[in-house]
Amino acid sequence: MWGYPEPVSRMIEQFMKLPGIGPKTAARLAFHVMGMDQKDVDEFAKALKDIKTKLTECAICCNITETSPCSICADPRRDKLVICVVGEPRDVVAMERTHEYNGTYHVLHGAISPMEGIGPQDIRIKELVTRIGQEDIDEVILATNPNVEGEATAMYISRLLKPFSLKITRIAHGLPVGGDLEYADEVTLAKALEGRRTL
Amino acid sequence: MWGYPEPVSRMIEQFMKLPGIGPKTAARLAFHVMGMDQKDVDEFAKALKDIKTKLTECAICCNITETSPCSICADPRRDKLVICVVGEPRDVVAMERTHEYNGTYHVLHGAISPMEGIGPQDIRIKELVTRIGQEDIDEVILATNPNVEGEATAMYISRLLKPFSLKITRIAHGLPVGGDLEYADEVTLAKALEGRRTL
Repeated sequence: MWGYPEPVSRMIEQFMKLPGIGPKTAARLAFHVMGMDQKDVDEFAKALKDIKTKLTECAICCNITETSPCSICADPRRDKLVICVVGEPRDVVAMERTHEYNGTYHVLHGAISPMEGIGPQDIRIKELVTRIGQEDIDEVILATNPNVEGEATAMYISRLLKPFSLKITRIAHGLPVGGDLEYADEVTLAKALEGRRTL
Repeated sequence: MWGYPEPVSRMIEQFMKLPGIGPKTAARLAFHVMGMDQKDVDEFAKALKDIKTKLTECAICCNITETSPCSICADPRRDKLVICVVGEPRDVVAMERTHEYNGTYHVLHGAISPMEGIGPQDIRIKELVTRIGQEDIDEVILATNPNVEGEATAMYISRLLKPFSLKITRIAHGLPVGGDLEYADEVTLAKALEGRRTL
């Protein structure tokens, strides 16, 4: 029985190692690559190589960066007294997109999840505590995700930082802007009510 | 505003060039690659390189292969008097999976599609005609896809091969095995009725 030539089946296997890509999609992608220009394939291979070799973690905030300290930690215009703690580098991108935050970040690279066997020692919490012990910090904003793992992580960090004399805040829960009261889940709605403010 | 470091955004761009992969999936894949072992990333990059450099087209059947002629054309046990014409290399895999066919193939690498500007000269029809003129062939089975493009391609080839004294057949249309009459579309059902056989 004829199967695909070895280079094709190997390419399919490689694509199947990526999350959310099954055998049919992998085959489609492999055939697409086979039809791509040599130049484009070389660029793809180079991007794979570079993403592993050219990136490092910022010695201060643990965000991914090409040079340490990263451009935010090295920026004299950023407010070094405030640290916003997030789960992943993509959360930094999301926060920056608001143009409302001018402090620094701390990237945990994950969240505490006993279900997945991820404990406090597996994410960059130690680095945060060390940093707060060394730097002069006024406020730590806990901006981990509003899900079970993110809440647990925020709770854990807030207890850990209690001994330090600083303000610890958590980003607000509530209805998303443009959302609809009718379709809000009851937990979000309860949180929105609880967090109500006088106008 | 902080964006992803250049190697990350470049990897995202590369993934976005693949079919069916949008910005969010591309970002997810890029971050996945960043967390992969160096060895696995090297293997991925090598597979990309090899799929472009190690493959060629069989000089006889135009199927993709590492060595020309391909293993099917070179196999003395295969019936060289019959050619099954298919659209893509993956169709050869599908045919071989039936274990019911022992002839050779001809891979067109596409189908005639005026909508996409693909004419007869853009697929391997010329190679098929040359081959039939040189080899001793009894039957050509047209196994292009049962859609508009595949039908048009089969029709075009059957007319082109009329001058040669050989049997030209088309794979049968009908209800898929395990299918349900109730849910069959009317065209398939009409074709199934038209192709009925005495038992």
